[in-house]
Amino acid sequence: MYQYEDDSFMLHTDLYQINMAEVYYNQGIHNRTAIFDLYFRQMPFENGYAVFAGLERIIDYLSNLKFTDSDIEYLRSQEYNEEFLGYLKGLKFTGNLRAVEEGQVVFNNMPLVQVEAPLAEAQLIETALLNIVNYQTLIATKASRIRQITPNEQLMEFGSRRAHEFDAAIWGARAAIIGGFDGTSNVRAAKLFDLPPSGTHAHSMIQAYGDDYEAFKAYAKTHEDCVFLVDTFDTLRSGVPNAIKVAREMGDKINFIGIRLDSGDIAYLSKKARKMLDEAGFTEAKIIVSNDLDEVTILSLQTQGARVDSWGIGTKLITAYDQPALGAVYKLVAVENKDGEFEDRIKISGNVEKMTTPAKKNVYRIINRQTGMSEGEYITEYSEELDTDEPLLMFHPVHTIKRKLIYSFDKVELLKDIFTEGKLVYESNSVEEIKERLDSNLAILWEEYKRFLNPEEYPVDLSRKLWQIKQDLIEDASNKKLE
Amino acid sequence: MYQYEDDSFMLHTDLYQINMAEVYYNQGIHNRTAIFDLYFRQMPFENGYAVFAGLERIIDYLSNLKFTDSDIEYLRSQEYNEEFLGYLKGLKFTGNLRAVEEGQVVFNNMPLVQVEAPLAEAQLIETALLNIVNYQTLIATKASRIRQITPNEQLMEFGSRRAHEFDAAIWGARAAIIGGFDGTSNVRAAKLFDLPPSGTHAHSMIQAYGDDYEAFKAYAKTHEDCVFLVDTFDTLRSGVPNAIKVAREMGDKINFIGIRLDSGDIAYLSKKARKMLDEAGFTEAKIIVSNDLDEVTILSLQTQGARVDSWGIGTKLITAYDQPALGAVYKLVAVENKDGEFEDRIKISGNVEKMTTPAKKNVYRIINRQTGMSEGEYITEYSEELDTDEPLLMFHPVHTIKRKLIYSFDKVELLKDIFTEGKLVYESNSVEEIKERLDSNLAILWEEYKRFLNPEEYPVDLSRKLWQIKQDLIEDASNKKLE
Repeated sequence: MYQYEDDSFMLHTDLYQINMAEVYYNQGIHNRTAIFDLYFRQMPFENGYAVFAGLERIIDYLSNLKFTDSDIEYLRSQEYNEEFLGYLKGLKFTGNLRAVEEGQVVFNNMPLVQVEAPLAEAQLIETALLNIVNYQTLIATKASRIRQITPNEQLMEFGSRRAHEFDAAIWGARAAIIGGFDGTSNVRAAKLFDLPPSGTHAHSMIQAYGDDYEAFKAYAKTHEDCVFLVDTFDTLRSGVPNAIKVAREMGDKINFIGIRLDSGDIAYLSKKARKMLDEAGFTEAKIIVSNDLDEVTILSLQTQGARVDSWGIGTKLITAYDQPALGAVYKLVAVENKDGEFEDRIKISGNVEKMTTPAKKNVYRIINRQTGMSEGEYITEYSEELDTDEPLLMFHPVHTIKRKLIYSFDKVELLKDIFTEGKLVYESNSVEEIKERLDSNLAILWEEYKRFLNPEEYPVDLSRKLWQIKQDLIEDASNKKLE
Repeated sequence: MYQYEDDSFMLHTDLYQINMAEVYYNQGIHNRTAIFDLYFRQMPFENGYAVFAGLERIIDYLSNLKFTDSDIEYLRSQEYNEEFLGYLKGLKFTGNLRAVEEGQVVFNNMPLVQVEAPLAEAQLIETALLNIVNYQTLIATKASRIRQITPNEQLMEFGSRRAHEFDAAIWGARAAIIGGFDGTSNVRAAKLFDLPPSGTHAHSMIQAYGDDYEAFKAYAKTHEDCVFLVDTFDTLRSGVPNAIKVAREMGDKINFIGIRLDSGDIAYLSKKARKMLDEAGFTEAKIIVSNDLDEVTILSLQTQGARVDSWGIGTKLITAYDQPALGAVYKLVAVENKDGEFEDRIKISGNVEKMTTPAKKNVYRIINRQTGMSEGEYITEYSEELDTDEPLLMFHPVHTIKRKLIYSFDKVELLKDIFTEGKLVYESNSVEEIKERLDSNLAILWEEYKRFLNPEEYPVDLSRKLWQIKQDLIEDASNKKLE
């Protein structure tokens, strides 16, 4: 099947990156340091915040980055020249990478990853970095959005069969749990990332036995923890009564956790099933529901008074069905010139929101000392000092009239050192720690940014200095056009 | 980062599959043969046909299927019992798998993959099979849909950065090319699957040089084949004139393929750019366009008279943006009983379209001898003979009054043997061969099924016998309810 061995992610990149690297190499500028920002422009799902995920995969990718023999052999077949191939052969990531941490609440137009590396290297890793962050951040955000409307119930990720191929199933499961889910059905993901696995049985088991009772009984004889799927033939006439029957017969021999509904009128069936379970004395038995759910169907079921203790979410979460792409980009913001000095760079666009913000940056979260709540992100040019002893004027970078003065604040630097001169300097967190980070992030975010519909726009502001650098470059470009 | 080594896809399954396997093992029925059909219920994108893809990945997956030590160790930590773990340790796929071939045109409610295997094995592979087919078939179909409205232009897959993690980028690229695309930007996909790689340079190269002219010139000095991206600063004032300038200066030293537009008013800019290129004598230079395109934006640009020779399609294809899940399912249709006889099985559902079709099947395409065109798919019970010397009555399985008599036809058996008793018996095709298969499939499909909007519903009919088997099982289940 494979023309060459699949032994490296080095060529997991767009062809143009290699073509550009060759140009830079031939011109002798491949080792000039370039700075790229990775960010997205629009909030996904019109949510008020997003949840960053993907850093672990980036660390793994960059730590193992090198051209294997089969990579070089393939490129040779594409007629790249030998000298350039010789350079590639020795290439590894030697730059700096700073990033926000996983589980961090993030927003549009703030740098999530900052790469400062030799031009050719920075270019070669673009595609993979975007591929990773775009997907994992999207799913973590979707999961957190669902968690916001179900603060008390159990949430299970059940989407592997509908995920976009294998990697999406496992990294999506991890991102879902980062975003607030409690478990995943994917056993490989659970094994690799130490996530709680979840699942009992499918319709096919009932079909195999041909009968609810026989199947439930067989399951109960093997597994102590029992959730019976009750909708294979007839939920209220066969499924629920037989679940109750088996639970009674097995008594203390099993832990009758509850039942699962996977089709039909969930609002109606869950209420009826609740009544049947209660009347049989199983008031602690849970009702688990799964059937093409997302935050909207859950909200609808909630308003109908559905009796649900646990939600299994598949397709709509793992594919981010209502918006399956985050649209993050990776833009050059500064590059070393021939004299070894950095020059800030901008990309002009007819679409104002596609205009990039130049220069190497720091990203701060501004925490109001009075309230302890976040006032917004404040992005400075890298060399700027942000003095927390002075009041801070924050203003909207486009509608500059929207502004506020923060008298007393603490700053939190959001970009952490991950790689320094190619060396991994960051200590990874467990998924549990990442979940705690998200919780503490959400705790200092006003409700107005977290609501399901029409959230307020969270401030992502530029410092006066950075704003001016951007305006000057826009003006330069605009003057050039008039020439 | 990883709790265990990622050395196997065996646990790339839902937890409930393992729990069910344990039940079957404990009850001694794990080796009873079961038959499962894999199919989807709704046409994706409301298209008139779909394009099957994923078989190569299935072959690779099943050929290497086994529980590694780390898999067993993980399951042990989850407290599965030792006897069952001992059984899993020796497990590999020993069943039969039949499937349609890649590049085959397929439809809803026809079996795409048929698994006939020991119950536990058939269950354990469900999740991965669906994960593969759901994604790859979706993307091949989307690609073919785009190809239908651009029969003559070049189509390039540019979506890696927006794909759902790494696997989706490479398998999606392959599926896109199966569906009719000409090349992909993903170099790893090109390397592994022998696909034509495609790409030149990005905006960042222009930004790095700070100037269109310098950048184009540098590119032209390294690469003979030149496509210049002209929209970094100002398409018509700087990008196109500088592309022309460099093309003139370099003359025969380069092959000036053309220019690429990636933003702005594509209809307007492409017409203006065409005029500028023509007036400069570059009438053969191509205009390549990329910017959040899909079949609808392409159609709109076509009706506006945009001058485009080549389309680069990213996000909307690789994520199947307008419908990011196919929704294929895997359903038990028959199982061996304790006497070694097969019993047909059905899953009843309140939703009629969720009702399964029981029994082991054959799937035929019926080719009308007069026209050479396909009359539809005809699904028989496996033991039935389909006699091509007799006229064939085809009828709609739900609206049975919709029927037609085919006087003279040839049959094509669509399910091919892939694994027989666990042994791979199928010889894989190259992507080129798969593309040819799709072309010849499409050639015998009436235009009415291929049109972009509101296509006719292609017949996927059951034989009289199979239809009756299904009705009888529905009636049985319905009578049971009345008891």
